[in-house]
Amino acid sequence: MLDFEHQVSTEFVFGKNAELKIGEKLSGYGFKKVLAHHTGDDFLQPLLARIKGELEKNNIEVFELDGVEPNPRLSLVRKGVEIAREEEIDFVLAVGGGSTIDSAKAIAAGARYDGDVWDLFTGKGKVESALKIGVVLTYPASGSESGNVSVINNTETNEKILISSRHLAPMITFMNPELTYTLPAFLTANGVVDMFSHICERYFSPATYIGVIDRMAEGALRTLVDIGVKAIKNPEDYRYRAELMWIGTIAQNDTLGVGRVQDWATHVIGNELSALYDITHGMTLSAIMPSWMRYVYQNDIPRFARYAEKVFDVKLEDEEKQALEGIRKTEEFFVSLGMPVNLKELFIKNLDIDKLAASVQYNPATNTIGSIRKLDINDVKNILTMAYEG
Amino acid sequence: MLDFEHQVSTEFVFGKNAELKIGEKLSGYGFKKVLAHHTGDDFLQPLLARIKGELEKNNIEVFELDGVEPNPRLSLVRKGVEIAREEEIDFVLAVGGGSTIDSAKAIAAGARYDGDVWDLFTGKGKVESALKIGVVLTYPASGSESGNVSVINNTETNEKILISSRHLAPMITFMNPELTYTLPAFLTANGVVDMFSHICERYFSPATYIGVIDRMAEGALRTLVDIGVKAIKNPEDYRYRAELMWIGTIAQNDTLGVGRVQDWATHVIGNELSALYDITHGMTLSAIMPSWMRYVYQNDIPRFARYAEKVFDVKLEDEEKQALEGIRKTEEFFVSLGMPVNLKELFIKNLDIDKLAASVQYNPATNTIGSIRKLDINDVKNILTMAYEG
Repeated sequence: MLDFEHQVSTEFVFGKNAELKIGEKLSGYGFKKVLAHHTGDDFLQPLLARIKGELEKNNIEVFELDGVEPNPRLSLVRKGVEIAREEEIDFVLAVGGGSTIDSAKAIAAGARYDGDVWDLFTGKGKVESALKIGVVLTYPASGSESGNVSVINNTETNEKILISSRHLAPMITFMNPELTYTLPAFLTANGVVDMFSHICERYFSPATYIGVIDRMAEGALRTLVDIGVKAIKNPEDYRYRAELMWIGTIAQNDTLGVGRVQDWATHVIGNELSALYDITHGMTLSAIMPSWMRYVYQNDIPRFARYAEKVFDVKLEDEEKQALEGIRKTEEFFVSLGMPVNLKELFIKNLDIDKLAASVQYNPATNTIGSIRKLDINDVKNILTMAYEG
Repeated sequence: MLDFEHQVSTEFVFGKNAELKIGEKLSGYGFKKVLAHHTGDDFLQPLLARIKGELEKNNIEVFELDGVEPNPRLSLVRKGVEIAREEEIDFVLAVGGGSTIDSAKAIAAGARYDGDVWDLFTGKGKVESALKIGVVLTYPASGSESGNVSVINNTETNEKILISSRHLAPMITFMNPELTYTLPAFLTANGVVDMFSHICERYFSPATYIGVIDRMAEGALRTLVDIGVKAIKNPEDYRYRAELMWIGTIAQNDTLGVGRVQDWATHVIGNELSALYDITHGMTLSAIMPSWMRYVYQNDIPRFARYAEKVFDVKLEDEEKQALEGIRKTEEFFVSLGMPVNLKELFIKNLDIDKLAASVQYNPATNTIGSIRKLDINDVKNILTMAYEG
């Protein structure tokens, strides 16, 4: 285990009707004025009404700001900061998934910053404090409900910037798996791929021995393989929805990542694909990961062979063949979820692999990404070509 | 998954020389007066000197209270409360293992309570607040370094009472695996059994399907079996010490227990054995657990068979035989650590099984303990008799 610092301070309230505890919890902590932040989608309205009812029953005043879009916008964050200041909001509540949570975090930090909130993203300012943040989670995927990170899009400057601060960690998250029964199959599948990838980014990293975090990660990956398709076929089976909801959280809050180098090459490439061609996060990951695996596996054949066995029950005489079969099984798993496994399936018009590879945010010190194999721009081009040619 | 509420708010600073970050961290949070609490053992002195050096370098005044004993005493807690009030201590630092941490927690709560600290244990008073608590961990076993629980002994009334409050959760824990290189083999073994049991108490509970928490728990148990003896034979191998230190924490902070019924019968019986005959916690657990397993396994043969396979690689045609072989392997594992696996090996003078069974703290509503099989006083007698006769 490498040296690490780790904290997940979020209080989790998990289970059937978890959101109905919100009034009691927030009034217990002394909050008076809540800004409820969400997309405004019709399907959220009954949930929002329940939440408002509980808050108002406990003498908490509720303000609302809707309009969150995927890749949340700075313009809406600025609007939220304005409301938070004018109305003296003391708690920002995200009702939704990753985009809504990230937007709420930015509002909470902006409200306590003396200047324009974008300064906190460009590095001109620093997050020294934030309003308290809460979440009612409706889409398990990003893990933002217990993380320190917020990613905001500035559409004026075409910048998408990530910041991280312990002040951005939600104080409390309400997780009712029943709220995810109505998620379309496509979104459930995207979420499963996102979680799977969050764990793989941590699992496939240089290590000299197998320890508790490796084995716990294998257990979580195995569970996703076991239940992913079942959850989609039986959308109202509480067991699967509950497992997915909790795995989404632990996949990204470093319960399965402490003390590890970690890799993140697939995510870094995927983010650029998302940014340039407006493709959902999960689809970029499933389209790239199998090719990434085939390109890097020779750097640690024993780990990829172990992955094949522990996650997919593949056991062959030849270690390298076993590793490759594990990669094929990964691909098969994504296909079973209805997800793309190459770039052709993304139907990108005018895909420019050179431009894409050049846009990737390499580590400025090394001009590479990844750790299990350090990838430079030519490696990235090769992976993208493999992912295109299939 | 059952409904649950879960929070582990502790900030973990893990790795080589972790304790040297203490001055910077605590002064960063604004603390001025620290009460360092410990046993006073000679082997702790160099560590204490390092910690004091770092704190004083950061303009933090350090007070000390030593004398913590196993099963920490109320009398020393009262002394600590007095010092904390007189000196206006703002941070209580436990340097040690479970007993020291529990004692520090009681001092921290008592200092903020207007009355005698024992009221907080008897229920006369409630923990509404506490001084902030920190830990430099020297003995991984109890998991108290990130938990809400404190257990204190009142030797005047012969009471040993446990309280739980989120105010008792350490704010920050420094974990340097190198500090455990000098632990005697016997203590390392006791710690391994304690962790193993903390996970089993959560794993062996009624459930209708296998989910992510089951699989993560299996991974942690498997790691303990893999490295327990190696850690004892190679006491200065950082890898094993680091794994044990982190497993001790996650074994008890419900990372491996959320959403489960949990059992705890072995612990409840073991605690009584500890109290009546002054036997170390780990020894009571290893002496009872195999007999408990043999007594209850028929209530969930598939789970015990799965445990045999996932933790000990046992795969037999007959499911029940596989379950029993897993229990035998558990026993063999404890023996390999040098731990007792029956009551005879504890060399208890005048063991009184009837008295012991009668002293056990049964659930007042049901007069039973445990969940995978609910055990009444006669069941407990049977288990103790099995554990005695071997």
